[in-house]
Amino acid sequence: MNKFFHPKSIVVAGASADKDKVSNNIIANLLEMRFGGKIFPIGRNGGEVYGYRIYRSLTEIPQTADLIVIMVPAVGVPDLLEDAGKAGIDRAVIISDGFNESGAEGIRLAEQIKQIASRYSIRFIGPNCQGVICLESGVCVPFAPLFRHQVKKGGVSIITQSGSIGWIAATSLSHEMDGISKVASIGNKLDVDELELLRYLIEDPETKIIVLHLEGFSDGRKLFEYTRSSKKPIIILKSNISGKTSQIALSHTAALASDDRVSDAAMGQAGMLRAGSLREMLEMCKALTLPILNGRNVAVMAGSGGLALIGEDSVLRQGLGMAKLPEDLLRKIAQMGTWKRLNITNPVDLGGFFNNLDILDAVESVLSQREVSGATLSLFRTKEYDSPLTCAELVDQIEGVCKRHAKPIALHFVSDFFPWLK
Amino acid sequence: MNKFFHPKSIVVAGASADKDKVSNNIIANLLEMRFGGKIFPIGRNGGEVYGYRIYRSLTEIPQTADLIVIMVPAVGVPDLLEDAGKAGIDRAVIISDGFNESGAEGIRLAEQIKQIASRYSIRFIGPNCQGVICLESGVCVPFAPLFRHQVKKGGVSIITQSGSIGWIAATSLSHEMDGISKVASIGNKLDVDELELLRYLIEDPETKIIVLHLEGFSDGRKLFEYTRSSKKPIIILKSNISGKTSQIALSHTAALASDDRVSDAAMGQAGMLRAGSLREMLEMCKALTLPILNGRNVAVMAGSGGLALIGEDSVLRQGLGMAKLPEDLLRKIAQMGTWKRLNITNPVDLGGFFNNLDILDAVESVLSQREVSGATLSLFRTKEYDSPLTCAELVDQIEGVCKRHAKPIALHFVSDFFPWLK
Repeated sequence: MNKFFHPKSIVVAGASADKDKVSNNIIANLLEMRFGGKIFPIGRNGGEVYGYRIYRSLTEIPQTADLIVIMVPAVGVPDLLEDAGKAGIDRAVIISDGFNESGAEGIRLAEQIKQIASRYSIRFIGPNCQGVICLESGVCVPFAPLFRHQVKKGGVSIITQSGSIGWIAATSLSHEMDGISKVASIGNKLDVDELELLRYLIEDPETKIIVLHLEGFSDGRKLFEYTRSSKKPIIILKSNISGKTSQIALSHTAALASDDRVSDAAMGQAGMLRAGSLREMLEMCKALTLPILNGRNVAVMAGSGGLALIGEDSVLRQGLGMAKLPEDLLRKIAQMGTWKRLNITNPVDLGGFFNNLDILDAVESVLSQREVSGATLSLFRTKEYDSPLTCAELVDQIEGVCKRHAKPIALHFVSDFFPWLK
Repeated sequence: MNKFFHPKSIVVAGASADKDKVSNNIIANLLEMRFGGKIFPIGRNGGEVYGYRIYRSLTEIPQTADLIVIMVPAVGVPDLLEDAGKAGIDRAVIISDGFNESGAEGIRLAEQIKQIASRYSIRFIGPNCQGVICLESGVCVPFAPLFRHQVKKGGVSIITQSGSIGWIAATSLSHEMDGISKVASIGNKLDVDELELLRYLIEDPETKIIVLHLEGFSDGRKLFEYTRSSKKPIIILKSNISGKTSQIALSHTAALASDDRVSDAAMGQAGMLRAGSLREMLEMCKALTLPILNGRNVAVMAGSGGLALIGEDSVLRQGLGMAKLPEDLLRKIAQMGTWKRLNITNPVDLGGFFNNLDILDAVESVLSQREVSGATLSLFRTKEYDSPLTCAELVDQIEGVCKRHAKPIALHFVSDFFPWLK
């Protein structure tokens, strides 16, 4: 599998002198991500793209390559794969669609590429996928544009049946937390499937957390075995609860919903963390980067009594308990804010704390208590509360407190800043 | 109740020539919201604030007033209320804290203000609250600053036990949907409670949707009766699932969680819509402004296959069904995007639609089908998809389609724009 993520040379089949062709985005992405290896575009009309000569066929290329990325109409894929085999290329990413997902002719073509690949011992990802991204090597072969400012290098790797979910996870995890290591969009998974990739990522030193987005299992039993053997957390976003095997099959809600209950139980037993939504998947990744809760006693802190009580509800709903805080600590905190509150307990109402260094001080004092296993902190992020630390600085400092005490803090901001339409 | 929201004159007790005193925010808020009536600040040291003379006591004020807003230390509240009664003021908002929520002395003061209010037939909201906001009259008496750009006038009214939840709801609903009509923060609700306010809002012509945030019920049976009689939707965010009656009481998780299950069932039976979180409450408000689903067949449209399938899962989880779309319509849509897809069905994959007028056209065609009761639409909101219509224009147009066909569309955007820390 490593050759898919760390090839030294890549052939991109489907390149065109017409810069607007979507397949050229593959080359653009490799350049954008500073892929350090060699790039050989091929396209039947030749010419030039991004300063590279476009070879008319694989036989013109001066050397063999580690990987070929194919984005030409489905009917042209078998010949290209045959050429690749002859040229000694044994890894392919097949982006093209029009195979087993699309009718009789597609199914025939799917069989054909499987045979050719097997004859030449070519391992391939796809078809009907966005291929791989690896932020360590700069490999980035989706045809969907990806820019450096959208992603950063971190510890989450993603195996996904949907290229767009991979894109969403990669960009969101890069903006909301440490970032990603690798993405593998596997599409129809006619050869390489989630099992092989999972095994690879479990061993991959750069990967700390694994996210699976699957619409169907290749082999559930094996998947759950691998998961049980993994020391790394595995989050699964399983969609297609109706269990459709083709887009045309109609769903019979009741029967199929029970199938989902079965697989849900199996995932749980294997220790997979199942996310109910994309948003939950992102939050789970963030939670997993925090220190582990080493007990069940949580301190709830909030910038208002209303939020404090909602925080306590969340703690109780999760089956956790509220930490008992010593009276002298509570008295100390009560004297800190701008308004002196007498009645402080856990949940700790930080209303009237307009200097966020006071907030930081209160958080540090609470988390340093031995009886506190972790905390939640719900704050307003409006102008009044943004001082003297900026919000970003405050978040950094709170992360520091977390790490110093090896206890998790779940952070929640309420803002009056709603910029999405602008 | 109407006098609380439409007073012609307001006394603000607790004003100070020291502009930084938090109680002066009440006057600042009234000015900011262009309250059209008279304002009479009173404060024991006199002076001037915001160009107003500060009267030293109620007896100095040249006329009686419709409402007095009190934010002085708790111990001073009984005398003020007595003065108000003598001056013929029969509505009060008591912002001050330090009453029955805070120990023996507070409980004594609470009893005292109840007696005084009863003797003079003063109806009061509070204490320990943020009072009322009414965007029709410009009444806005919270001490938390509120600015005109943060709120707009719309059809949601909010009764809340927590002032901050009122602030969050008011600002969020103003930015994410049509806006708000009234907010009543009732705090300790020693006199006016959620029941009276609910009855008022059920009749209030400006209020279309009612949101309740409660930490405890004054009279559950009556609340559910009123709800059943209401033609307006009532959303409830019930927090304090542990059922604590004081902040000091410790929670006994298991026993108290079952109390919440009982009240949950009662709320459901009464036809209240219970929101599990602040976010869910906001989404419910938005959903209620859409036309009602007049059947159970939903069309799912999405900018990618992965999102489409997640959309279908959501429809099935809600117990709804997938609409059958006619083949000629599917063929027409398949010919519209930049990439021609053959395999379109419901869910409708709008991958490759880079011109958002095409998206709009597809949405209109789908929603105009008789067999479609409503739709979900999941789109990317990145630069590539922002043309020729801007995202805001596209949203406006989609709202138009909704209304034209009197069918709801649930809209979901995925963005690569993450500005919160900036």
